[in-house]
Amino acid sequence: MRFFEDLQVGQRRELGSFTFTAADIKRFAVQFDPQRFHLDEEEGRKSLFGGLAASGWHVGSVCMKLIVADNQRLLEVARSRGEPIAVGGPSPGFRDLRWLKPVLAGDTISFSSEIESLRVSASRPEWGILQARNAGSNQRGEVVFSVLASAFVPRRNNG
Amino acid sequence: MRFFEDLQVGQRRELGSFTFTAADIKRFAVQFDPQRFHLDEEEGRKSLFGGLAASGWHVGSVCMKLIVADNQRLLEVARSRGEPIAVGGPSPGFRDLRWLKPVLAGDTISFSSEIESLRVSASRPEWGILQARNAGSNQRGEVVFSVLASAFVPRRNNG
Repeated sequence: MRFFEDLQVGQRRELGSFTFTAADIKRFAVQFDPQRFHLDEEEGRKSLFGGLAASGWHVGSVCMKLIVADNQRLLEVARSRGEPIAVGGPSPGFRDLRWLKPVLAGDTISFSSEIESLRVSASRPEWGILQARNAGSNQRGEVVFSVLASAFVPRRNNG
Repeated sequence: MRFFEDLQVGQRRELGSFTFTAADIKRFAVQFDPQRFHLDEEEGRKSLFGGLAASGWHVGSVCMKLIVADNQRLLEVARSRGEPIAVGGPSPGFRDLRWLKPVLAGDTISFSSEIESLRVSASRPEWGILQARNAGSNQRGEVVFSVLASAFVPRRNNG
């Protein structure tokens, strides 16, 4: 996590990658999205997806997990340098989420995040609000997931 | 699930409710969104949320689960009446997702879905595409979650 004052429009970070195994896909689907094409290989093949496909909510949740892990990594770097620690706030939501292509069992998705806008919160001036385009691409370089996410970011010295 | 031809703009369905226990919130957070305010009551109280709060991805995933369960219920009704079975397709994405208020441990969220638009798919005319406003309200009637979701819906007799 970084402070609002450290951020610039256009900054991009790589969030790492995740391979969606058949077991991962089914485990999420049983809990939250038990549709046939997320639960069974043969049903996946017969569907518009053409194979056992991850729930879109699973893809988004994995992206979230990688963002949190990357924030944790940045926090450790700051801590090791003795720099002040920025603790992030919640997200008010997002716009324009697209599941552009299926994520099939065995696909490895690499996620990234690029800042599209920055502003100070009108109601809580000790916080900034960023909008970032979070996206995931598969091993063939095809974008499979994209979302314009908002998040509260702390200001240095409480603004 | 119903066929495209059975649907009308303005149709609303109640999807049921879900109580987010502290254990549920932490179990999802450990897997997908391990931020302090989703993992620990005291950290939640100190945060903007004011209490142990569910991950927004958890709230959306529970909404998805209730949609799938309601589709399954409609399918059983159709089957018991000997009516043709409509098998739904995937979702290409959604717009305008908002986490309007925190979902705190113990909150019971009731979800609903209301159709906002209907059109035939240009590229796959055997499918329709609906846009529905899916929303969740807490036990005080406050809307906490709202998203405009798209989904493929089968046409009767393949259009």
